[in-house]
Formats: sequence, structure tokens, C-alpha cells
Amino acid sequence: MLLDCGRSLAKGWRYHRALRDPRTVWFTTSSSSRANSSEVTRDPMTGELTALPDIEPSRLQIRKVTSPRPVPSSSNLVFGHTFTDHMLTIPWSAVRGWDTPQIVPYGPLSLDPSCTVLHYAQTLFEGMKAYRDLNGKVTLFRPDMNMKRMQTSAKRIALPTFNGDALLELIKSLVRLDKHWIPQEPGHSLYIRPTLIGTQKALGVAPPNEALLFVICSPVGPYYPQGFKPVALYGTTEYIRAAPGGTGGYKLGANYAPGVVPQKEAGRKGYVQNLWLHGPEHHLTEVGTMNMFVVFKAENGLVEIVTPPLDGMILPGVTRDSVITLAKEHIFGKHKLQGLPENLVLNERPVTMTEVKAAAAQGTLVELFGTGTAAVISPVDKIGYLGEDIVIPTGPDGMGPISRVIWKELVGRQTGAIPSDWSVVVAEE
Amino acid sequence: MLLDCGRSLAKGWRYHRALRDPRTVWFTTSSSSRANSSEVTRDPMTGELTALPDIEPSRLQIRKVTSPRPVPSSSNLVFGHTFTDHMLTIPWSAVRGWDTPQIVPYGPLSLDPSCTVLHYAQTLFEGMKAYRDLNGKVTLFRPDMNMKRMQTSAKRIALPTFNGDALLELIKSLVRLDKHWIPQEPGHSLYIRPTLIGTQKALGVAPPNEALLFVICSPVGPYYPQGFKPVALYGTTEYIRAAPGGTGGYKLGANYAPGVVPQKEAGRKGYVQNLWLHGPEHHLTEVGTMNMFVVFKAENGLVEIVTPPLDGMILPGVTRDSVITLAKEHIFGKHKLQGLPENLVLNERPVTMTEVKAAAAQGTLVELFGTGTAAVISPVDKIGYLGEDIVIPTGPDGMGPISRVIWKELVGRQTGAIPSDWSVVVAEE
Repeated sequence: MLLDCGRSLAKGWRYHRALRDPRTVWFTTSSSSRANSSEVTRDPMTGELTALPDIEPSRLQIRKVTSPRPVPSSSNLVFGHTFTDHMLTIPWSAVRGWDTPQIVPYGPLSLDPSCTVLHYAQTLFEGMKAYRDLNGKVTLFRPDMNMKRMQTSAKRIALPTFNGDALLELIKSLVRLDKHWIPQEPGHSLYIRPTLIGTQKALGVAPPNEALLFVICSPVGPYYPQGFKPVALYGTTEYIRAAPGGTGGYKLGANYAPGVVPQKEAGRKGYVQNLWLHGPEHHLTEVGTMNMFVVFKAENGLVEIVTPPLDGMILPGVTRDSVITLAKEHIFGKHKLQGLPENLVLNERPVTMTEVKAAAAQGTLVELFGTGTAAVISPVDKIGYLGEDIVIPTGPDGMGPISRVIWKELVGRQTGAIPSDWSVVVAEE
Repeated sequence: MLLDCGRSLAKGWRYHRALRDPRTVWFTTSSSSRANSSEVTRDPMTGELTALPDIEPSRLQIRKVTSPRPVPSSSNLVFGHTFTDHMLTIPWSAVRGWDTPQIVPYGPLSLDPSCTVLHYAQTLFEGMKAYRDLNGKVTLFRPDMNMKRMQTSAKRIALPTFNGDALLELIKSLVRLDKHWIPQEPGHSLYIRPTLIGTQKALGVAPPNEALLFVICSPVGPYYPQGFKPVALYGTTEYIRAAPGGTGGYKLGANYAPGVVPQKEAGRKGYVQNLWLHGPEHHLTEVGTMNMFVVFKAENGLVEIVTPPLDGMILPGVTRDSVITLAKEHIFGKHKLQGLPENLVLNERPVTMTEVKAAAAQGTLVELFGTGTAAVISPVDKIGYLGEDIVIPTGPDGMGPISRVIWKELVGRQTGAIPSDWSVVVAEE
């Protein structure tokens, strides 16, 4: 009955064959996971479905591991190689909407070989971190930003959207269950990876009729365990990361695989990552998988922080937004940061290699750094560009004078050591 | 011992943790699937691995279905929704190279939720067709082209390459095993989907330390069951398919998900697919997921077939190459095609919307069509461009005078009805 209603609702999706296919495997097998009349919206006159169920935290089912694994020593962590005991899964279908959320033991997903994510890159993800302070309190950093960006990403590749607050509630439940996996040492955290994939069991470049949202968690150590180490970038003119009308402004899997070979080639040339340039004037856009900032001494005596504007090619990074906000709060006197100059300005504007090169030659280049969830701030000391190396100033600790101050405030707020409304408490202990 | 050798070989890949992870699940569990000393190349002095095993057809293991499914009626086929009884899988790892090829019952893949394909779009694929003629003979069409393009795609996103002839042998074995699934009716075929995905069980944007090549097959009917139906295109200026320095010239999953929303939007505007344009002069590049050709009456009395050059943004399509070759064989007198004009020229050159629009207005536009494995040739009768519709001539049968002749020869050679070295026999009956 439900299937019949759904079928009439979603005419033209051509999914009916997959539904009738006896090989069809649902991600959830719980008998209570079937949507019932109280969970879907029906037209009072016809009884037809008028809206599909959204993610509903109250439907969460938890199946705990029978033998929890030992938590590894914090000193041995390699980014993204170790995962906690549990994961969150929420299946979606064009017929049933968002189905029962489940927290289950971490383990392999069963995916039909025709699943569209495997063929057409129907995937998007987020990167978040949970922190544990010295009192045992567990916090997330600006998780609402990730939930909002997931919607934007989903819309861009026709994956289903959802109530971000509802997903956040479920992520909090997962983090609470596995909170003993969060390393307490300074600079350590639990990296959280929400992922949404198209799981339609049929080939065809179209909006998928099935999808799966899952969240896995990985305890991680500091990006720079021996202190900040500035990186050398290769200003690539052979490859692009993004272009106008493309997907650079969205956190899609499709933006990442194409960057691996350019990164390898930069490595062979003696650089750590790529500086992604755009257009004939070689505008700076991003650094590896991070947003970027450059700081100039301006002619009028001001110190100018510049980051490329969100023109569709730039990922709207949470760390990027946080750096901008901290700088603006200082500039406008809302929250002064000790150590930042009084004469600071911040501009989201295009910046070219010609400008950076000239500033380096004239001694007006203050610093250049990348920002991202994994490394927070990543200072740069060199850019290989058109056959020569542009030297970028860095301090004795590897950082520049602006990023050093901002980093300290940012990490304080991230870990909850500096109280702010950016830090959301998940568990008191 | 083997793992230790491999570990020293692939230093810096950071995969050792995944190998030691007790949750690691190999795609093949056969005891004989472990590489042994006869299958890998070792340094005679040190015993260290010097090369990793390539795909080896002689190692093929076949596990047949116990209950073959009934083959569906040809009249009910929907593209890519029905799959045959078996699939081919070949796992790869940075330590073991290409492992045992297996033909097994079609069924779900077990993928760790951290697998890089699910996060970073580490996937590429091919589209091929097997045909069955009236005598029962089974053939493939230019499969060497697909095998070569798979290598090019793999290199572009740091997935492992392999011996294409070896994979082709294995695909032939799969097709022979499931040949009763190939519909015999005119225009029907078995669509073959080789896919290569990165399966590293750890987050990290890098060359994966594990991969899986799999091949699935789907019986398909004719793209236009009621005869050719020309399509209306929307010349999009909002979205791009590719850009210089990107991945448009490679058959990567990453090129496909971003096209779904533009296609939906074109549909809402009353068009069937997008005409992908590039640059300020609006160069025509591709049509939906197909290559494209346009035919002009040239000033000097010639009839000119134009297709955009392989400049890195254009997929090197097998059908595209076949159309070019057939036209050239006619032009240079190697193989005249009855019905094509004597005064034909073919140019791989850039073509702009200004040129197409002017030709339509002047009556010198002969036709415009897309080419691809699924539809073979797809005629176009309209382009929505900057607020107006450009009408493209089509004949009473929906096709234009050039594509009609080429389509007939091409389909003849594809099905083997017209003998040529493009058709490769897989089974005599």
C-alpha cells in the first residue's frame, strides 16, 4: 500500500524495477523500520503521500558492539586510519524518505555493484571534530556550519536534503557512545566524517532513488606533532581544482580524486602541495585541500588580510569563516585579540600571483597560510611558480605574526578552553 | 614475509595500519588467491619484490550461480536496471598487485565505510556492448579502445593500471558464461560496465593502497525503440562539464554526478539535455554524456563535418572515433559509403555558438548530433541558447543526411552484419 502510494508519487524515476528486484537489500532490516502512517504526511482527502519522512532522531535504534576494541595509544594515531566502535547509518529512498537511523558496530557496507556512487561519484562529505577537555567535557566546533554545508552539497548533485538539526542530534548520540575514543592530549580530537552517497541499484546518470547517509569517527593526533612546519607549495599551471560553473564551492567527492596526481607531481618537484590557480592572471584560489589567506603590508600603513571570495570556486570552509570572523571581531572592536595590530583590515577579494610575487620582492608580504579542519592553520614558506621560488616569510616558530594570534584564539575556542558559542557541549563528562 | 617485502617496497603509502587492522576484509577469500613466489618478480639476490603481478587470466576462478535467474523479456528492458547472473572481480593492492580474477554470482560488494571511492570519487568506468547476431555469434565492438582508455583514466586519478589484453580475455569469459542474456532482437545488446574503484580502508586524499576492478553486464534494448527521436538541447551558460586542466578528457565518475542538476534544470526549461559550452566564445564541447558533431554547408561547396578536438576537455569516445574513421575512409576513398556526398571534409576543430547560430540563420546548417555507446547516434533538432531557440534541420526519419548513412554503416559493423576488424568474435554460437 505504502509502496503503491510512493510509486504513484515518484512517477518517472524508473525505480520500480529495482524495488521488485528480489536481490534488493535494504540497509536496515528491522521490522520497525518500515515507515507507518504516523510517520508520513498524507493528503486527508485521498490518503496519498504528500511529503516523505525527514530524519527523525526519536526513531534511533542502537545496536552496540558485543566486544569493544581497545582504544589505541594516542601517540600512534595516523589520520583517518583508526575508527571507533560504532557508526551511524540512515538510509533514504524516493519512496520511503529518510528511514530509521541506526547506530551499529563499525563494519563494511553492503553495496550493489551497480550503485551509482561507485560509477558516477554521487558522494559528498563533511569533516568535523569533537574535543575532550581536561575535565572530560566533550564538545563539537560550529557543527551547524557543517550541517548547512551538507545541504548545499546535496542540492548540487541531486542527493536528498534533510533536517540538519536532526542529523546533529544523532551525531551527538554517536559521539557520546564512543566518547572514550576521544584522545584528551592537547591537539588531539575525534575526527567525524558524515558522508552521503547515492545507492541506486541501477546505472543511469540521474537523481538516485536511494541514498545512504553514514557517519564514522576516527581519533586523530595533532597535524604537526613536532610544532608548526611550514610547507612549500607548487603554483600549478597544468591542473585546475575548480572553474566557474563547476563544483569547487561544494564539498563533493568529485573535487578530490582529480587532485591526487597533481599532488604527486608537486611532490616529485620537491613541493608538498599545490597552490591552485585560476585564469590567465593566475588568481590564487586554494591550497591542497584547504582554503588560503595571504597577509600584506598595504601602502597606507595598514596590514591587510586577504582571502579569495566565495565566487563558486572556493569551498566555504568552517575554519575560513572562523578566521574571517575572529579578524573582523578584532577590527571592529567586538573582541580584541592581543598581538594583532590595530591597523588591520580584512578583504575577501581576488588576489593574483603577480601581486604576491611583487609583495615578496618588495618586502610587503607578511605571510601566507592555508586553513582547514584537519590542520587548522598551515603556514607556507615557499611557492614554486613559473620556474622560480617565491620565499614567504615565517617566524622562528614556523608561523606568521597574524596567523599565530588567530590560531591561538581559534584552537582555544575549538577545544572549549576559551568559552564561546562556537563550542557546543555534547557530554559534560 | 611477503607483507614485509611489500611494506619496504611501498614506503610512504601509510597503508601498514590498514593491513594490520583485524577488520580488514579481502575481496577474495580463496586460499589459492594469495600471491606466491611464482607469481611475483623478486630480486634474485635479495628476494625482494621488484614488480607486482599484473592481471593474469590463467588464474581465473569461476563460481557459478546455483540457481540461474530467468532471462527477462527483451521488450521490458530498461537501460541498466537488469543484470546478468555473474560478475567479474579483480582486487588489487599496493602490496600484492593484481590478485586472483574471479567470476562469481552477481551480488553486493562489501566495502568498508572508509573506502576512498565513497569519499573522494576514486572511480572510473567504461561502457561497452556485446552483440548477438541471427546465427547466435557473439561479438564485441572495438574493445581494445575501451581497454586503452581505462589505462588513461586510471593514470589520471592514481588508480592502478594493468594489461588491457588480459582484462579483455576475462571480460570475454564473463560474456561467454552469460551469453544467453544477450537479446537477439535488432538494436538490442549486452551493455558491459567495467569499473575500477579505490578501496583503501582509510581516509586520506592519496593514491589508494587497495582497489577493485569489477565488471557487470546488463541486457539493453534500443535507445530509440520507436525510431529516431531528435532531442532539444539547452546550451547552458550557467554550468560547465569540463575546463582546461580538469578531467573532461577522462572517463571518471567525477565528471558525471555534477551533470545531474544541470540536466534536471534543462528538463524544467523544456529541453532534454545540456549542450555543454566552454569559454567566452561559447565553444560547443559535448552533449549530455555524449560527444557531438555538427555538419555545415561550407562556402566553397564542400560539406564539412566538424567535431571539437581532443584538447583535454573532450572525452575520446569510441563512437566519436568510429564516426571520424568512417567519414575519413569515405573522404580518402578507402571505403566509400553510398549516400555520403563526394565533396565531404572532416575537421576536428573548435566550433562556436556564433557559428552554429549564423549557419542556422543562413540555411547552411545541415545537422547536429551526439555520439555515444548507449544511443550510438542521437540527432538534435533544437538548441535553446541565450533566450531563443535555434532550429536544427532533421529529416522525416529524425536523422540528418550524413548521420543517417554513417549510423547504418556503424550499426552494421557493431553488430557484425557488415564484416570489419572492429567486430571481435567472443563466441561462435
